[in-house]
Amino acid sequence: METLSENRCCGGVQGVYRHESTVTGTPMQFSVYRPPQAATGAGPVPVLWWLSGLTCTEENFTTKAGAQRYAAQHGLVVVAPDTSPRGLDLPGEHDTYDFGSGAGFYVDATQEPWSRHYRMHSYITEELPVVIGEHFSVDMTRQGIFGHSMGGHGALVLALRHPARYRSVSAFAPIVAPSRVPWGEKAFTGYLGEDRAAWANYDATALVADSDWRTPILIDQGDADTFLGTQLTPELFVEAAQTAGVPVTLRMQPGYDHSYYFMATFMGEHIAHHARLLAI
Amino acid sequence: METLSENRCCGGVQGVYRHESTVTGTPMQFSVYRPPQAATGAGPVPVLWWLSGLTCTEENFTTKAGAQRYAAQHGLVVVAPDTSPRGLDLPGEHDTYDFGSGAGFYVDATQEPWSRHYRMHSYITEELPVVIGEHFSVDMTRQGIFGHSMGGHGALVLALRHPARYRSVSAFAPIVAPSRVPWGEKAFTGYLGEDRAAWANYDATALVADSDWRTPILIDQGDADTFLGTQLTPELFVEAAQTAGVPVTLRMQPGYDHSYYFMATFMGEHIAHHARLLAI
Repeated sequence: METLSENRCCGGVQGVYRHESTVTGTPMQFSVYRPPQAATGAGPVPVLWWLSGLTCTEENFTTKAGAQRYAAQHGLVVVAPDTSPRGLDLPGEHDTYDFGSGAGFYVDATQEPWSRHYRMHSYITEELPVVIGEHFSVDMTRQGIFGHSMGGHGALVLALRHPARYRSVSAFAPIVAPSRVPWGEKAFTGYLGEDRAAWANYDATALVADSDWRTPILIDQGDADTFLGTQLTPELFVEAAQTAGVPVTLRMQPGYDHSYYFMATFMGEHIAHHARLLAI
Repeated sequence: METLSENRCCGGVQGVYRHESTVTGTPMQFSVYRPPQAATGAGPVPVLWWLSGLTCTEENFTTKAGAQRYAAQHGLVVVAPDTSPRGLDLPGEHDTYDFGSGAGFYVDATQEPWSRHYRMHSYITEELPVVIGEHFSVDMTRQGIFGHSMGGHGALVLALRHPARYRSVSAFAPIVAPSRVPWGEKAFTGYLGEDRAAWANYDATALVADSDWRTPILIDQGDADTFLGTQLTPELFVEAAQTAGVPVTLRMQPGYDHSYYFMATFMGEHIAHHARLLAI
């Protein structure tokens, strides 16, 4: 693991790192915030995973979300991975903002040529946690996950598929039913193929119907978000969750859009949500 | 004035705007955060000016500093201008990061060709306040100013030269003695000419010696800042201020560098400093 930068922030350290991923077959970058509590030798602290949205790298969240203050307050390590493999030049990989680079959708692709590299599900759930565990003082029995838009989709899917791994989950403006909206249909067709049966494993609304997830799920959604209705359909998830007995709180935030200004506004409440559940 | 974007943030509105400046002879962009208090019809609120450092536009502070939360808490409008005229192509204007575009140094240039456009002192103190006063509900009898590095220089110089206009001033890692460090010597030679007597009007350490500024000045400086010592010499300002009876607090912050992670860490304390003095 190579250190690209480390900056003191809110009493802790904000770092950006790179490693060679065997899962994606590429170098991968990620950021890690270590709170002051991680430096005192007080023992390992919980880890909170942030998954970003379309077009993002690890940098957007790290520089714009203002999460460090709250992570420092609650004593959480926060890890923000990139959103896709980088440095490749697969056919069409860089042509559109919603497929290929910057748009890994947190799936393990099954279709060539994506299946050789676009394996973000395994990367986030298997390979990167090992790297984090080796290099940082984290308590892997206390993990939470959250994200935005495509990353909100990723957070919900990963939590619902790995409930023994994640204790808490929340999302900002998540894609909750990718099988039924244009962003998801395009990505899943490309990565997973035409057979929609294979899509359900990456569709939070489908997954929650059979889920035994039982800690409260927090979702914030701006009602001035231009993607609401077409790409973002939070009511579908809420309905399925309620039917399955999974506790979910959807907060429609008046006047807020899809930007980091929205996320920064409610970042403190999301991190407090995770801290509460991770402290148990 | 043209609205480029407006996003709801922390209960208020973060906007970015453009207007045609007669002072610089160019279009100029700036950002304005309006706190919730500015929308309730409770009357005009104080205004806090942020001046950015080398290479910045209005965007860096607006997206990275996390100032909105504190501005909302205290009910302050925060204005962040650009750091130079844009859209020109003067000889050498874009060749180096520390002179020309992105490096206006908040002076009124006297040397050709800069004197026709690089008039950031007049732009910030005269023209832009009129634009802000026309379009936003601000109380121009309650203004504060702060900034970073080159912008910390600008904030200190503007406050010391216009004590009747600004009630409060603070700075992060400011250039306090530009006449005596390479960044300032290069910029002042280019904008103001070889005669160093003309430089004193833009040198905070020179200005403070004859100043009757009497509200506390707050300066934060990271001790891991790679520019400390060569470009940043806060002790020179403190010594001159103390001799002149001007109250200044210099806080050396251990482990912090020159980045926005440093500023974001202490942004809340700076805005509280201004809010306290602007409430009087």
